[in-house]
Amino acid sequence: MSILVQKFGGTSVATPEKIHQAARKVIAAHRAGYQVVVVVSAMGQTTDELIALARQVSAQPPKRELDQLLATGEQVTIALLAMAIAAQGQEAISFTGGQIGLVTDDVHCKARIRRIDQRRILKELRAGRVVIVAGFQGVTPAGAVTTLGRGGSNATLVALGAVLHAQACENYTDVDGIFTADPRLVPNARKIDRISYDEMLELSSVGAGVLQTRAVEFAKKYHVPIHVRNSAHHRPGTWIVAETKAMEDIAVSGCALKKDITRVTLKGIPDHPGVAARVFTAVAAEKVVVDDIIQTIADDHTATISFTVEHADVADLQPVVNRLTAQLGAVATYETDLARVSAVGVGMKQQTGVAGTMFGALARKKINIQNISTSEIHISCIVAKKDGPTALRAVHDAFGLGKKRPGLGSRF
Amino acid sequence: MSILVQKFGGTSVATPEKIHQAARKVIAAHRAGYQVVVVVSAMGQTTDELIALARQVSAQPPKRELDQLLATGEQVTIALLAMAIAAQGQEAISFTGGQIGLVTDDVHCKARIRRIDQRRILKELRAGRVVIVAGFQGVTPAGAVTTLGRGGSNATLVALGAVLHAQACENYTDVDGIFTADPRLVPNARKIDRISYDEMLELSSVGAGVLQTRAVEFAKKYHVPIHVRNSAHHRPGTWIVAETKAMEDIAVSGCALKKDITRVTLKGIPDHPGVAARVFTAVAAEKVVVDDIIQTIADDHTATISFTVEHADVADLQPVVNRLTAQLGAVATYETDLARVSAVGVGMKQQTGVAGTMFGALARKKINIQNISTSEIHISCIVAKKDGPTALRAVHDAFGLGKKRPGLGSRF
Repeated sequence: MSILVQKFGGTSVATPEKIHQAARKVIAAHRAGYQVVVVVSAMGQTTDELIALARQVSAQPPKRELDQLLATGEQVTIALLAMAIAAQGQEAISFTGGQIGLVTDDVHCKARIRRIDQRRILKELRAGRVVIVAGFQGVTPAGAVTTLGRGGSNATLVALGAVLHAQACENYTDVDGIFTADPRLVPNARKIDRISYDEMLELSSVGAGVLQTRAVEFAKKYHVPIHVRNSAHHRPGTWIVAETKAMEDIAVSGCALKKDITRVTLKGIPDHPGVAARVFTAVAAEKVVVDDIIQTIADDHTATISFTVEHADVADLQPVVNRLTAQLGAVATYETDLARVSAVGVGMKQQTGVAGTMFGALARKKINIQNISTSEIHISCIVAKKDGPTALRAVHDAFGLGKKRPGLGSRF
Repeated sequence: MSILVQKFGGTSVATPEKIHQAARKVIAAHRAGYQVVVVVSAMGQTTDELIALARQVSAQPPKRELDQLLATGEQVTIALLAMAIAAQGQEAISFTGGQIGLVTDDVHCKARIRRIDQRRILKELRAGRVVIVAGFQGVTPAGAVTTLGRGGSNATLVALGAVLHAQACENYTDVDGIFTADPRLVPNARKIDRISYDEMLELSSVGAGVLQTRAVEFAKKYHVPIHVRNSAHHRPGTWIVAETKAMEDIAVSGCALKKDITRVTLKGIPDHPGVAARVFTAVAAEKVVVDDIIQTIADDHTATISFTVEHADVADLQPVVNRLTAQLGAVATYETDLARVSAVGVGMKQQTGVAGTMFGALARKKINIQNISTSEIHISCIVAKKDGPTALRAVHDAFGLGKKRPGLGSRF
């Protein structure tokens, strides 16, 4: 019997009615012959509400206690979904992360999954039950509750898909799938039918919000296909799968905008070997992701290092930067009004002229490019935050992503 | 160093401000030289709100899942209280029932504590931390979350007091202590300074809501003094302690009213030996407490058995009663408009005329007594529900409980 792992995001379980709607999808999959494991997020805005409650109590809540608090959000949903499924006549059993032995490292609020004990889940599946697992959470080896960071429920989904050798993971959300760009910013954005893990990885890392980088990396590593689809209807969404030859015909599959980029610049650093390593080792210890690193040497033989981070990480970063500047005799500045627009596609590897098309599109809109970074399959430009949406639409149009092209919808 | 176990009930942690108020009391005890363990309930009406949420999803939620849901209420409070204590500069660490190895039986929603692993708590106390424990919850040996039933946080409080050999348990609540009667019903009710475990046991079992029978039984068994006091101020409340000789001078220490009593009557039962045992064994299997049992034999040699239960237990009881009536060929009736008024005092053991005083007081108010039950230290009368408050005031006055008597306030 094949195992199907389904995930319902916060908006798909926001009310008792939506929980019953999710229960019907779960039972339909069970009746179709799957052994079904369901991962759920906290209902609606619960996580944000719990964070707001914590902030009312403490400006800087200890992260261990914040995790203890936030994990209750998913625990509420697993219990309610189990009740809904039982009320519809199907046996179901709920588990917290700790109860299925989902062990993480001990980096509170951003923990990484180390292992999952699949035996308990398999035992319940064999007994004919639907198994419901709290997403976004685990426990340290010592038993403290951890959370996996924003989007952690997707990490839970894919990790379960991997350890259970699931046939597929279904990620139910409130959108129809992965789009060529954010439809709220780009009205003619279109749904993509199939996309490769690598393209999705790049899209995630440059700001397409549906799936987090970690979840996709995991899915790629363990060959778990993910179907991102809308919980409000039955139409297929976007399949995230291994790359196929045919995908290379399309230079750019999607584009994305990351708002709220902050650029940190450290000036007056002594130009010694190993200084850059010292800076980024210290930053990495805070689990902050940095991009767009530039190092320049001034006439006075001091170095300037700049890099970008997400605005949300600045609070974590500041103590480290303060320590580094004090140690190195450097000065730090923060520029906050930046955004990053990116184009992603596996076809870039073969095709030429992609960068030129992108820069030309931005130039025609008189948008100044402040920094460029590239990989094999993406190009990103840092622009002023106010120019972000215009830049995204320009790039989307330049690669013809809004047009219904013959064969694109069913190119695999 | 002495250990003090404090408990803050739902109203004492209902808002972030009240949580900070509780944190100040905790820190004051820590600074006074105690090692402090704190048990907390869910904030305000959270438990009731979670039950209402469950009912929106299912008319009969599975009890395992209801426990999974309800336990989140206390988990929220422990995290927030730990944050508040940390924000006030004192190290604190929170634990769910499962995290401190509070193991119960597997009777969901009414679980009993089997054991607590005090090692983890003692380790944190020795490290100078305040330890915060979620009340009302535990885990089965297999790891499922259980709850201890209404008032279960008090069971947690006293159980921790016992295993940690605490000097005392402080039960912070929104009332000043134990009263001679419910002040909402009896305006001249007075706070009792000290009361024996046995008196408190009787008062709890006949309806005085502050402390549950189980918690007091535990405290008596393990010689844990309990101080019931108001979290809103610093004045002493009521100490619940071992009985002393001086207590016997007072015939009646307090009285109580239990509203919402249902009398179940089974008619037409074949009068065979063992039938009553069969009835009450079946009822006991549902963990329902019964009182006021009466058995009579009719002229046709069939038996009638009647007993009273709390109204809240009727839903659990009905399937059993239906099965019994079907098996025995009997007919069941339910009378719901009943109440029980009770007088309690260790002095009853020595003094005479207590029953007469009570019955006389009710007779003068023309209140019909439908049933009487007694123990060494209590007398209870079943009356019509509408007569309950009048009956309580009459009994309270008959024993002079509202009068400030010399020596009563400081008789120990």
